[in-house]
Amino acid sequence: MEDTLEFKAQARALAEAGRLCAMRGWIPTSVGHFSARLNEQQIVITAPGLDKGRLDDSGFMVVDLDGHVLSGDQEPAAETFLHIVMYRRNPGIGAVLQSHSAQATALSRAFPQGLVLEHYEALKQLPSAGPGPTATAVPVFQNTTDMPRLASQVDDCMARHPELAGYLIAGHGLYTWGTSVEAAMRHAETFEFLFQCEVLSRTLDR
Amino acid sequence: MEDTLEFKAQARALAEAGRLCAMRGWIPTSVGHFSARLNEQQIVITAPGLDKGRLDDSGFMVVDLDGHVLSGDQEPAAETFLHIVMYRRNPGIGAVLQSHSAQATALSRAFPQGLVLEHYEALKQLPSAGPGPTATAVPVFQNTTDMPRLASQVDDCMARHPELAGYLIAGHGLYTWGTSVEAAMRHAETFEFLFQCEVLSRTLDR
Amino acid sequence: MEDTLEFKAQARALAEAGRLCAMRGWIPTSVGHFSARLNEQQIVITAPGLDKGRLDDSGFMVVDLDGHVLSGDQEPAAETFLHIVMYRRNPGIGAVLQSHSAQATALSRAFPQGLVLEHYEALKQLPSAGPGPTATAVPVFQNTTDMPRLASQVDDCMARHPELAGYLIAGHGLYTWGTSVEAAMRHAETFEFLFQCEVLSRTLDR
Amino acid sequence: MEDTLEFKAQARALAEAGRLCAMRGWIPTSVGHFSARLNEQQIVITAPGLDKGRLDDSGFMVVDLDGHVLSGDQEPAAETFLHIVMYRRNPGIGAVLQSHSAQATALSRAFPQGLVLEHYEALKQLPSAGPGPTATAVPVFQNTTDMPRLASQVDDCMARHPELAGYLIAGHGLYTWGTSVEAAMRHAETFEFLFQCEVLSRTLDR
Repeated sequence: MEDTLEFKAQARALAEAGRLCAMRGWIPTSVGHFSARLNEQQIVITAPGLDKGRLDDSGFMVVDLDGHVLSGDQEPAAETFLHIVMYRRNPGIGAVLQSHSAQATALSRAFPQGLVLEHYEALKQLPSAGPGPTATAVPVFQNTTDMPRLASQVDDCMARHPELAGYLIAGHGLYTWGTSVEAAMRHAETFEFLFQCEVLSRTLDR
Repeated sequence: MEDTLEFKAQARALAEAGRLCAMRGWIPTSVGHFSARLNEQQIVITAPGLDKGRLDDSGFMVVDLDGHVLSGDQEPAAETFLHIVMYRRNPGIGAVLQSHSAQATALSRAFPQGLVLEHYEALKQLPSAGPGPTATAVPVFQNTTDMPRLASQVDDCMARHPELAGYLIAGHGLYTWGTSVEAAMRHAETFEFLFQCEVLSRTLDR
Repeated sequence: MEDTLEFKAQARALAEAGRLCAMRGWIPTSVGHFSARLNEQQIVITAPGLDKGRLDDSGFMVVDLDGHVLSGDQEPAAETFLHIVMYRRNPGIGAVLQSHSAQATALSRAFPQGLVLEHYEALKQLPSAGPGPTATAVPVFQNTTDMPRLASQVDDCMARHPELAGYLIAGHGLYTWGTSVEAAMRHAETFEFLFQCEVLSRTLDR
Repeated sequence: MEDTLEFKAQARALAEAGRLCAMRGWIPTSVGHFSARLNEQQIVITAPGLDKGRLDDSGFMVVDLDGHVLSGDQEPAAETFLHIVMYRRNPGIGAVLQSHSAQATALSRAFPQGLVLEHYEALKQLPSAGPGPTATAVPVFQNTTDMPRLASQVDDCMARHPELAGYLIAGHGLYTWGTSVEAAMRHAETFEFLFQCEVLSRTLDR
């Protein structure tokens, strides 16, 4: 399965996304997981415990949308549930990325009720925003080791708010997605920029 | 038109400016536009939706100072009006750049009435400052999707204050300009440095 | 002794750790010391006064766990005691690193009674944390020029709290360790990320 | 004169210092000047208006300690006085550097009466500090366009406090020096690190 062109192309795009995120300080050590869709039923996802800045083809596994491992001999990370739930909900989603910067982490702890990003031109880079500078809600979920339960909370939230472009887990960073790895990276980059702006805005507003 | 030496030279200078701005975190994803003058009536400007860190010759279009597209088959970005208005007002302007850092964005939101930068040696790098460390005003305009109206507000402001070296749009970053792409980049770099200083000064002064 | 494969391998790993730390701004000029175990009785440690970003094989000396110099003609740095005490206490420790970032330094001064890091997913990257997002204590010791006394305080603290993954010295940065240079670097990276989060969290919480 | 080995070696060392400072954001655009001693009576100093990140041999001029230009056809920058005054006072000084980071600039404005850096291990990297973590005073001078007068104030201050390792000019950045370009860079790096710590400490202490 790791021989298919599709696998190789997606693994390469995810490895490049990991390299960029690591270089920018958005993924400390080996936290976080990146995934991309292979077809209707299968995704490629990072194997557990790897440094995201140095991924190669051997750093990925294939799982189906029921969570069965189709390649490799490792157990997938518990966070795999958080990826699968997105691909099942929306067939248009081609990639799910996690970014875990200090600013995403600090904001997720300071605003346990969720964050609203508004009056930023850069919101136009997110799928949920209209032509003008409007607002984007970013829900914050409590962190837990019960990943199936957390995945179900995310699924419920997405059912009610299909327009969401990303969410935070408290102390755990950002999940965002897109039609492709490139689109998801653009959303990660936009969110991280807006998180920087939020931290500075709250410092200046005091 | 894209074959002229003038076009190639200006496109190359703008691509290099974009690469530097992206590397320094002043242009998240594909926001912002860069332009340079080709002659009395024509400018080259970035096409919409491109990552400013990876521009090449195909990432630009030529428009005249009435807003007509002279090359390429794309619609120019609405922000093109904000560029044209500067070239029409001042024949000495050779380039207009937008930089969109987190500090520029946060300050533009915190000071909707405008910002005054004073008592900085680096102000000498801006055209409006005299030989000593004086002050530079940075107007802040409200953001809007009505670009022709915003362009007209900018034009009025420049008519009253021709000495201005740049302005902010709330939540949208800095516009600055110069006799060449290099000169405009020097102004962008100076403003971004002063914005960093302002954020730190306001943190220390509390 | 500098000819053994073991020496060369450990010196190379420490030089690479130094290069990464210097690049990230975690080791200003020539402060700090890095070490790795050669065998039950001997370690390799950086010679005094060197820039950690440009280490090569000649930048290291071999000392035994009684503090005797086994190679080179330099006196070891006084901080060598702080390294030896860890290797003597725990035969599983393969490397001890010091990182000295601005955030580690500022936190070590602001919290002389010690720091508790809690509710961070990244805590899972540290050996003392369990499967869920729990808490990690980071003791802060007073700085002093009496290194043998400080080493003895650290030793007493480790006897009472063998689960510790690192400690701070006030105004002096972080000491952390691991089974190998790579493992110790992962802990340094995790701590530095968490220190960034703590500084931002305390800024946002005010 | 630009043909001597001494000139070439010092120009190369200053160009490398400039490249490092620019890369770290300590020298925005073309502000600041770097110099190094050629002999008892002559120094090499950066020509006015150049980007410090891209210096080559043509970016320097030779002046004597009375301020006479010995090479090149440019007028030296007014700040040349601030360099000469140090070389005249202390024959052991081999280089004078200016670094102009946002944190140096913000601190110089927030503490017009001067700054005291204390309880930092990194102070040991500065010549004035003893074996233990003691304190270093950093005077802050008012900025002015009257450089001869400012140079005379600096000279008076150095006469009273020969142990000083650097000083700030309000809104204008840090002057520091050393026996060589490398030594002066180590002091600049130490001060910039300590300024970062000071900004963070004051943020945390509130």
